[in-house]
Amino acid sequence: MPVNPDRFLQDLHALRAIGASGVGKGVVRPAFSEADIAARDWLAGRMAEAGLEPHFDPVGSLFGLSPGAERSLLLGSHSDSQPEGGWLDGALGVIAALEVARAAQEAGGPPVSVVSFEDEEGRFGVTTGSAIWSGHLPLAEADGLTDPAGVTFADARAALGDRRGDFVDPARFTGFLEMHIEQGPTLDTAGEALGVVEAIVGIRDMTITFAGQQNHAGTTPMALRRDAFQALSAFNLALAERFANVVTPATVWTIGHVSLHPNAHSIVPGRASFSMQWRDGDADRLRRMEEIIRDIAAEICAARGMTCEFGPMLGLEPVAMDEGLRAALARAAEAEAPGRWRHMPSGALHDATNAARLMPAAMLFVPSIGGISHDFAEDTAEADLVSGLRTLARAVADLD
Amino acid sequence: MPVNPDRFLQDLHALRAIGASGVGKGVVRPAFSEADIAARDWLAGRMAEAGLEPHFDPVGSLFGLSPGAERSLLLGSHSDSQPEGGWLDGALGVIAALEVARAAQEAGGPPVSVVSFEDEEGRFGVTTGSAIWSGHLPLAEADGLTDPAGVTFADARAALGDRRGDFVDPARFTGFLEMHIEQGPTLDTAGEALGVVEAIVGIRDMTITFAGQQNHAGTTPMALRRDAFQALSAFNLALAERFANVVTPATVWTIGHVSLHPNAHSIVPGRASFSMQWRDGDADRLRRMEEIIRDIAAEICAARGMTCEFGPMLGLEPVAMDEGLRAALARAAEAEAPGRWRHMPSGALHDATNAARLMPAAMLFVPSIGGISHDFAEDTAEADLVSGLRTLARAVADLD
Repeated sequence: MPVNPDRFLQDLHALRAIGASGVGKGVVRPAFSEADIAARDWLAGRMAEAGLEPHFDPVGSLFGLSPGAERSLLLGSHSDSQPEGGWLDGALGVIAALEVARAAQEAGGPPVSVVSFEDEEGRFGVTTGSAIWSGHLPLAEADGLTDPAGVTFADARAALGDRRGDFVDPARFTGFLEMHIEQGPTLDTAGEALGVVEAIVGIRDMTITFAGQQNHAGTTPMALRRDAFQALSAFNLALAERFANVVTPATVWTIGHVSLHPNAHSIVPGRASFSMQWRDGDADRLRRMEEIIRDIAAEICAARGMTCEFGPMLGLEPVAMDEGLRAALARAAEAEAPGRWRHMPSGALHDATNAARLMPAAMLFVPSIGGISHDFAEDTAEADLVSGLRTLARAVADLD
Repeated sequence: MPVNPDRFLQDLHALRAIGASGVGKGVVRPAFSEADIAARDWLAGRMAEAGLEPHFDPVGSLFGLSPGAERSLLLGSHSDSQPEGGWLDGALGVIAALEVARAAQEAGGPPVSVVSFEDEEGRFGVTTGSAIWSGHLPLAEADGLTDPAGVTFADARAALGDRRGDFVDPARFTGFLEMHIEQGPTLDTAGEALGVVEAIVGIRDMTITFAGQQNHAGTTPMALRRDAFQALSAFNLALAERFANVVTPATVWTIGHVSLHPNAHSIVPGRASFSMQWRDGDADRLRRMEEIIRDIAAEICAARGMTCEFGPMLGLEPVAMDEGLRAALARAAEAEAPGRWRHMPSGALHDATNAARLMPAAMLFVPSIGGISHDFAEDTAEADLVSGLRTLARAVADLD
């Protein structure tokens, strides 16, 4: 089942041209934009040329179905982009899926279907198209979601007009494989070519507020201050120390948003609200981290005569990848790049999160140069793109 | 030279009634507002009744001059308020000065003049009226200053019309004494009645920016992050450790403003800009602190592969209070409240900063309940107000 790297790269660049923007290989192709719909129409044409049956579902996710009644593997990702995105992101997984399905058709190989989910980048929600398909997000609920400009999902998907058919029956598929750029620096930094995803990490996210006493920054002695920024800084330090015994090198946590009040040079800040987000592939570890976070915040506030308030916690559970599919990807990776691949978690959400509700699912990563993504500068070496394609094809053949 | 506490308190409440606002004893009487000008007209009347000669200078600072050619002490402060202010702040020092001058007139005591400087609270600058009088801020330059609404100082002071005369010759005065609320919690916390100010602290203030790498908060391992908030937190901690050998209990430093970029839950912050302000009565200590700040910032950034940028530094030099006047206040404080007073710096700027350019100057503090000021809730126990008045009168008599 020989894939054609040149044809694959040509298609990848052809898709990039639809919505090409910004600098370098930048792309602006958000869900339901003219460029997004044009890209899906182009893709439907390429699917048909490859002998697949193009089919839009009610929310614009485009399937290229393997012909006939036989069950097939489903490969793919998404072709919508961030408001300012790179050329690979989901597009890579869609075009790699197309090339593998095409090669399978040509070689009389195993039946392979292709998908480009709609709105993975979350103009309206989080991995919207695959979340709806998986049943996790009811369509009626999704229709009421609005983008930052106030457009509803119902109005946005109406732009697809009569392209749309019914939802595709998930029972047609034996499993889902998604190839994606890593979007992080791990593979690039280690000089490795491939990552076989063990799990898509779970996320916990909440806003914490420390309230002390706003005061004059000249007349309030250090010893009498209840400075909310100082409490935040002490919390941050204690967190790193206490997490040390609990986390793995793959665990991450981030204070990305900080809002001081009144946020003035000459005033001791009386209030600090900040985001606390943590991610890990293990739900129990996420829970232990939450305990530490709540304990330290309470200790810091008690010691400083301050109050501490926890906002509602967002929770997305970790999703383990299917053992059988993972093993096939691992064998293919070792054959393609011996010793130059690793098992790793995905720190970002992907459509595979939702597909895993319906069928066995797994993911393959290729390196992101400098770990950069969601940016015009996002890129991956051509050799790594092809290496990923070949690994995906090997795994599909292996699973046959 | 017996002062009259009842008359003093009555005048203080009469002044409070002009611009009374908000809750409790709150006052809204910003510089050049109708309430501010009405208060100055009322004050001029009280000065005349006390046998003083009222005189407005070109910027609205109101003097009550001791009659005759003899040189006199000058006592006072300011009667303008913050946009939302308390009833005491500068008003206390003006009414205490009025009562002492009145008592001196009645008792045939030493000649005492009174002043209420204009715009101490900085609608247009910093201690604007006394800064102009002292020559530190040229009038032509001040006239170009604008308030947050875009009104020029020139237009604002025109509201005083033909009240205004020439600037008062500073050579008329032998020294300046300013009584003021502490605006901090030191005296209140210690249960002390009086503070004799040793120096008005100097201020250094600059914005520092740490620039690292903005990244995806899910896909970027902790070890590969260049997180600007983490750098700020580490800087803050190192600062406290390294300052420990340099500062005194009166030294203060504040990070009151923090701005992260892009300030989002799911993004490792790539940039942190923050305010670094420090205050002390000793210029050499301020300089040593600056060295530590610059050293630590550079070390933190170097260790983390980040860049660090220092904005322009605002510098106001410390102003030592006059030895002779201080000693007189200290003797009076010990007589009035034996063992219940202290020498202390002023962490806030005051009109005495400017007066000290022209003549010997000193300040006396009374407690602020809970350290609160620049707030409707600002207050001081009546016994402490009277204790301050008596101490000021004792010092004036002592200096005769």
